[in-house]
Amino acid sequence: MSSIPFLTEIREWPDERISIVTGRLQHKTPLIHCITNSVVTNFTANVLLAIGASPAMVVTPEEAADFARIADALLINVGTVTTFTAGVMRSAAHAAQQASTPWVLDPVAAGALAFRTGVVGELLACKPSIIRGNASEIMALAGRGEGGRGVDSLASSDHAVASAVSLARSSGAVVALSGEVDYVTDGEELFAVRGGSEIMTRVTGTGCALGAVMAAFLSVAETPLLAASAASLLFAEAGRGAAEHSSGCGSFAVSFLDALDAITSRVPPVDG
Amino acid sequence: MSSIPFLTEIREWPDERISIVTGRLQHKTPLIHCITNSVVTNFTANVLLAIGASPAMVVTPEEAADFARIADALLINVGTVTTFTAGVMRSAAHAAQQASTPWVLDPVAAGALAFRTGVVGELLACKPSIIRGNASEIMALAGRGEGGRGVDSLASSDHAVASAVSLARSSGAVVALSGEVDYVTDGEELFAVRGGSEIMTRVTGTGCALGAVMAAFLSVAETPLLAASAASLLFAEAGRGAAEHSSGCGSFAVSFLDALDAITSRVPPVDG
Amino acid sequence: MSSIPFLTEIREWPDERISIVTGRLQHKTPLIHCITNSVVTNFTANVLLAIGASPAMVVTPEEAADFARIADALLINVGTVTTFTAGVMRSAAHAAQQASTPWVLDPVAAGALAFRTGVVGELLACKPSIIRGNASEIMALAGRGEGGRGVDSLASSDHAVASAVSLARSSGAVVALSGEVDYVTDGEELFAVRGGSEIMTRVTGTGCALGAVMAAFLSVAETPLLAASAASLLFAEAGRGAAEHSSGCGSFAVSFLDALDAITSRVPPVDG
Repeated sequence: MSSIPFLTEIREWPDERISIVTGRLQHKTPLIHCITNSVVTNFTANVLLAIGASPAMVVTPEEAADFARIADALLINVGTVTTFTAGVMRSAAHAAQQASTPWVLDPVAAGALAFRTGVVGELLACKPSIIRGNASEIMALAGRGEGGRGVDSLASSDHAVASAVSLARSSGAVVALSGEVDYVTDGEELFAVRGGSEIMTRVTGTGCALGAVMAAFLSVAETPLLAASAASLLFAEAGRGAAEHSSGCGSFAVSFLDALDAITSRVPPVDG
Repeated sequence: MSSIPFLTEIREWPDERISIVTGRLQHKTPLIHCITNSVVTNFTANVLLAIGASPAMVVTPEEAADFARIADALLINVGTVTTFTAGVMRSAAHAAQQASTPWVLDPVAAGALAFRTGVVGELLACKPSIIRGNASEIMALAGRGEGGRGVDSLASSDHAVASAVSLARSSGAVVALSGEVDYVTDGEELFAVRGGSEIMTRVTGTGCALGAVMAAFLSVAETPLLAASAASLLFAEAGRGAAEHSSGCGSFAVSFLDALDAITSRVPPVDG
Repeated sequence: MSSIPFLTEIREWPDERISIVTGRLQHKTPLIHCITNSVVTNFTANVLLAIGASPAMVVTPEEAADFARIADALLINVGTVTTFTAGVMRSAAHAAQQASTPWVLDPVAAGALAFRTGVVGELLACKPSIIRGNASEIMALAGRGEGGRGVDSLASSDHAVASAVSLARSSGAVVALSGEVDYVTDGEELFAVRGGSEIMTRVTGTGCALGAVMAAFLSVAETPLLAASAASLLFAEAGRGAAEHSSGCGSFAVSFLDALDAITSRVPPVDG
């Protein structure tokens, strides 16, 4: 493998490019097709609504392919994949690829369980724009490591940077590696986003909802790299703010939605 | 089509009839059978509990028909309908019709996607007591307009009033048209409920939960028209109160449940 | 039937044994396999995260048995069981029994609906470590009473104590009977846990999440009796605290998660 790109830290919110992405999203209210896991459907929908996107969970084979064609972006998260939903996911991913609908793949627990690892392999062939995962998942997809333990990563994101770069180059997707530090790379450039809050690891769905926001940003950003970076930075900023206004896991989740709402509402809608 | 009925504004909470409905509900704690979408199950159950009803999500073909017969009312919401749940919905709707269990149909995204539009057509044949939808959905069921975009309406409720009246007359159901103004009609009378909060459009499940509350009120109100009007007015009042005590989408959802709890707890239980 | 054991009241939090259970849990962060109902997946996951456990909802036949073998404990809750998930539950329960993974059965509405009563009967044959239910459910499994009305119990927990003791003796499981007073028994000892808050009956998922916490405690407690008692006492304490910091059903659920987080964070991690 060739070398790891020079690391650029993204430190400030908002920088101008990210403001434009957020402003465009509020002007467009893009329709985001989510096929996600049963634990996080509600939180994911509320996160998308808080930032000004329009979530739609369309999850049956009779509709999913057609809807993936007309949606502005698609999220597929395999967290609670079943025999039935695996077929829905394949069908939506194929339709998205054919229709050039940009899409995000969240390969929850890939590498740890054989069935979903197989499903994720098939989905990768449909060329997602962004792959978002934790260190164990990204290392497993890059052919390193042995997967995590359930949905949790056993490795820190720092140890998976080389895998992320390698996976980006082999898949053609931007890889967004979530952890204490978030890394985002297209194989050529590499960004690090610090911040957020430790408590985000103890609120279910923060990572899954980040994938949904990346999908929303795909519909308005110039590049998948910018979409993924902007989403990570928005979450870090909202997480930092929410931690100041909460007194535990429960109030954090509530404050996090309020923070997303407040941050994005401050940005004026931008046409184009 | 004949003319649109004279419009009556419902302005105050509580008027005496609505207090009686709410008081009866707290005395009876009716059992509400919900076959609803996977995004809003939790919020819907919490809304029903907050007003004093007892939610039950029974969603398998072996049980749904039997349960629809013994429940006090039934809600069917097609938001995330699948091949499997479409069968459950048909079976429950037929059983409700046979057993005279009053029921609410929420035709999410009908008109926008062919499969669910077909399912909704079959469900309509089972004579729901109330049809609750947004402007795009109601216009589609009335044979006008071309449906919305995903779950969102592209039309305002003001433009769909004629469709609501027409659908009420053709279906025999009360039609509850949700939007910036809620309209409720049985084809003869037409009520408008103003109030609520803009933020309700950015919290997932508020519309779906409104359908569940209409089902709960069906079990204690003299007419479906009163049940639908009372539920809309309760939501408008709770939304107004919650907006005052919240600082964004996240805290609004929490305050909304608190407001429903507070409003209905102030009304003493009424027997009969 | 032989006599009911002498009743021991558990009054204080924390007693030393329970502190040790909670401290061990925080050291181990056990992986809890949850096959639970669709209404409470999010709340259950957040409760487990708040106390320091790691939830994983793995719900497809291709994975559930394998995962039940490697998880530290398993929860099966039949609240929204379907034709499909019944098979997943059977398969996971068999695998847990074979692998000696401790597991909790939550027989929601058993006795009230024939299909799930049959499923629960099959699951009981796989020897759960703990059965957690309300009075109607426990009485139905003990062969008394006629089941509840939907998910709600029609009987108080006081009237079901004899059934709980009988079921514990016949099944070999610890029986945790939830109600205004929680009773926990292995057929030889009988504990009563008072406290909590009336409002817990009006927040969906508190009982279901209690079953999940019992599963988490099974992975670190010496006995199922201690696991079930510790979980009940933790919930009573968190419920008491949350009621003081909330102003209705909505804020109670948030404060309850904060309270679980605060209580368990005060206990230092314990190895062994």
